[in-house]
Amino acid sequence: MLQMYDLAGADESIRFSPYCWRVRMALAHKALECDFIPWHFTEKDRIAFSGQGMVPVLVDGETVVSDSWKIALYLESRYPGKPLFGCDESRALALFVKHWVERVVHPLVVRIVVRDVWERLHDQDKTYFRESREKRFGMPLDEVIRQRDQTAARLREALDPARAALDSQPFLCGQSPAFADYIFFSALQWARCASPYALLEASDPVAAYRERMLDLFDGCARRMPAAAQPGIL
Amino acid sequence: MLQMYDLAGADESIRFSPYCWRVRMALAHKALECDFIPWHFTEKDRIAFSGQGMVPVLVDGETVVSDSWKIALYLESRYPGKPLFGCDESRALALFVKHWVERVVHPLVVRIVVRDVWERLHDQDKTYFRESREKRFGMPLDEVIRQRDQTAARLREALDPARAALDSQPFLCGQSPAFADYIFFSALQWARCASPYALLEASDPVAAYRERMLDLFDGCARRMPAAAQPGIL
Repeated sequence: MLQMYDLAGADESIRFSPYCWRVRMALAHKALECDFIPWHFTEKDRIAFSGQGMVPVLVDGETVVSDSWKIALYLESRYPGKPLFGCDESRALALFVKHWVERVVHPLVVRIVVRDVWERLHDQDKTYFRESREKRFGMPLDEVIRQRDQTAARLREALDPARAALDSQPFLCGQSPAFADYIFFSALQWARCASPYALLEASDPVAAYRERMLDLFDGCARRMPAAAQPGIL
Repeated sequence: MLQMYDLAGADESIRFSPYCWRVRMALAHKALECDFIPWHFTEKDRIAFSGQGMVPVLVDGETVVSDSWKIALYLESRYPGKPLFGCDESRALALFVKHWVERVVHPLVVRIVVRDVWERLHDQDKTYFRESREKRFGMPLDEVIRQRDQTAARLREALDPARAALDSQPFLCGQSPAFADYIFFSALQWARCASPYALLEASDPVAAYRERMLDLFDGCARRMPAAAQPGIL
């Protein structure tokens, strides 16, 4: 059975890492069973065997792979059924989507959810997390959160290219979802699992897309505990 | 022989429309010969047969297609050799790239090149062009241009997702270029053909990418008259 080390909150049922969510969705896409092992930020020793200190870490027998993109390539190579990429070109374009998500979407989402993430962390993670994030943002988390509504407005505007693409197809990858969708959706799911803040407006086509993604694979992403309230987007 | 109505300057050898460039590159990709007919903004009557007033307009015997994306789909369907899209998924992801280019890249490029485009237009186009663009920007073209260096800095930052993808592959579409590359490159070629302004820094990997694109198909994009000076990026 595959194993994946998965970032967890103090309540270990809360799993919010966008990078871990990409892999979780990729595994569901390929119908691969996996044991998701809860892990906390400061438990570097528990994944030292992977040669680095971040999750996701996938363990497949003797094989250890870290980094969500490398894990996707590994899964595609080792378990080629139900492909995550339709062809070489779509894998290359999924890499562009990955960089768009990481450089445009994530920096805005993190500023919306960071204090809620902090509140949900294990006590042992809280000091590390607050100090590293306050250093990154150059301001206290409370100040980041005071700007949250403006950040959400910027995020909604930044999602415009995805919104426009979703106007003519149900998924970024077309008629059915593939890895580029899991990359993008995982940024939304990160917020949904960690924060009650309404990231999107109810009428936003991206919110309808998120619902479609939550329905996939028997609702595997919808069933996970979320901080977002039912009916709140 | 295919015909394409192609936006031209007063000097009809100057062809700068990014939408027309997409089709020109797609035709070169498929090794299809085409007669590129110079057209000016105010010559709506000359393309009235297409049922709308914008170029590119492709004429293939009895078939008339306008809109660069629809033309690409038409060419792919009618001339399936040398595909513009590797698979359905990459076509869907190319649509995301299209919207990213049109909603993020074009609005910045236009503010850098707009006065140079205006200077190169046929006299009959100049009043229409200046009035419509000043209305769009809410300010005189000279004021738009006074902000040009700041706009270029924003553009270079906005190109970050493409730059990151090009760090691990020579083209957005992977090891060889396809339609998503023509969409992105055409935004750069628009500036190169219309303006001597140095859009990119010499050390920018996106500039190296542009060189690779200019080399394609026996240098078909490099051979076209450019306002950019040799050695100026």
